[in-house]
Amino acid sequence: MFDLIAFDADDTLWHNETLYSKTQDKFKQLLSNYQSAEWIEQALYEREMRNLQYFGYGIKGFALSMIETAIELTQGRISGAEIQEIINFARDMLKAPVQLLEHAEEVIARLSQTYDLMIITKGDLFDQETKISRSGLADYFTHFEIVSDKTRDTYEALVARYDIDLGRFLMVGNSLRSDILPIVAIGGQAVYIPFHITWAHETVTNQDEEQLGYFELEHIGLLPALVDRLSNRGDATGSSQQ
Amino acid sequence: MFDLIAFDADDTLWHNETLYSKTQDKFKQLLSNYQSAEWIEQALYEREMRNLQYFGYGIKGFALSMIETAIELTQGRISGAEIQEIINFARDMLKAPVQLLEHAEEVIARLSQTYDLMIITKGDLFDQETKISRSGLADYFTHFEIVSDKTRDTYEALVARYDIDLGRFLMVGNSLRSDILPIVAIGGQAVYIPFHITWAHETVTNQDEEQLGYFELEHIGLLPALVDRLSNRGDATGSSQQ
Repeated sequence: MFDLIAFDADDTLWHNETLYSKTQDKFKQLLSNYQSAEWIEQALYEREMRNLQYFGYGIKGFALSMIETAIELTQGRISGAEIQEIINFARDMLKAPVQLLEHAEEVIARLSQTYDLMIITKGDLFDQETKISRSGLADYFTHFEIVSDKTRDTYEALVARYDIDLGRFLMVGNSLRSDILPIVAIGGQAVYIPFHITWAHETVTNQDEEQLGYFELEHIGLLPALVDRLSNRGDATGSSQQ
Repeated sequence: MFDLIAFDADDTLWHNETLYSKTQDKFKQLLSNYQSAEWIEQALYEREMRNLQYFGYGIKGFALSMIETAIELTQGRISGAEIQEIINFARDMLKAPVQLLEHAEEVIARLSQTYDLMIITKGDLFDQETKISRSGLADYFTHFEIVSDKTRDTYEALVARYDIDLGRFLMVGNSLRSDILPIVAIGGQAVYIPFHITWAHETVTNQDEEQLGYFELEHIGLLPALVDRLSNRGDATGSSQQ
């Protein structure tokens, strides 16, 4: 059995990368008179990576990186009106309706009847809080943690803070880098549910999944059955069988 | 006695508004060919207030508001190079050394020997985390809470989360609006230590300080003596006198 099941939020419970991806398309369109789409995408990604140490994750840092990329790629010829459009893209992202992934609500509602649930998400504090609130899912969760990054250290701090028994803890997410591998590394169990688009920064290559010891599901609708199976396995090896 | 003493960070433990103020001066200088300093300051403040619901508090939102203000006030004539300068202002703010206020380090070190200390600060998660880390004060604190806003609801949630006994809790900060009045409203004790510059948004007018029931000190160096006095008073009225 589990005491606590934690979920990543962006692209695990609701669409997020879709929003970034659509905004990048608009950004490439805006600069299409200056550069090719491939070149814009590459320059933006490099700029985001260089800015990560100053801006962290989230939409506002993404907006500032788009503006810098636009200035760079147009050699400063970008107009004030075009830069205003980029800021409008960001504001549109920040106020976009939260679109839940298929099955997410029913699965969360069902698991919340048996388990304490937690959200662990990274990004802008303010943006993540309003998304949790607008998602309609907040009442199913007992704990919320918005973190600036998801490293082994981050998770170890949460384990200490909530006095989590890792043998009875399950983490569910769509990023091997952020949600799965750090949990496996500290001895927790994790369920990897890939999302159809993944930001290049979050991808991990060349792993041997069997060896890494996590579970993988095609979509979140399959999670309750896996949790049931793992719980029963836990019961069978534990002292009290039901 | 107190179980827990919580501190605001920006302009309570280290300089912050000074950084914004210097950046605003550079921003006004940048636009000085287009508009008067007063007009720029007013337009920027209004823009920040309109953007607060989308961007929340912090330097990245401030940068986006400066850029929008610059585009508006120049009717789009601002150049790409000038907008790049505005982003550079923001990056300079994000990597600026943390300048502790006078007496802050000695006071925090001393109080940490007797009390559990906590930081409660609002703004960008990533920026606040790196400032805490760079301040050199982190080891003196037991708990850190970075919140998106400081309202009565925020504090009530923290009181529940940490199981805080408000009769044995003290909050110290430089903003009546964010640090003092919400704490007094929920029955906690608070020490107001004004900073010489306060952002207009954080000011509160027309209060009767006596009636509001908080303590006011001229600088943080005076805090240990006040805490000692309050602790002794607590002992005298409590069951165990020493």
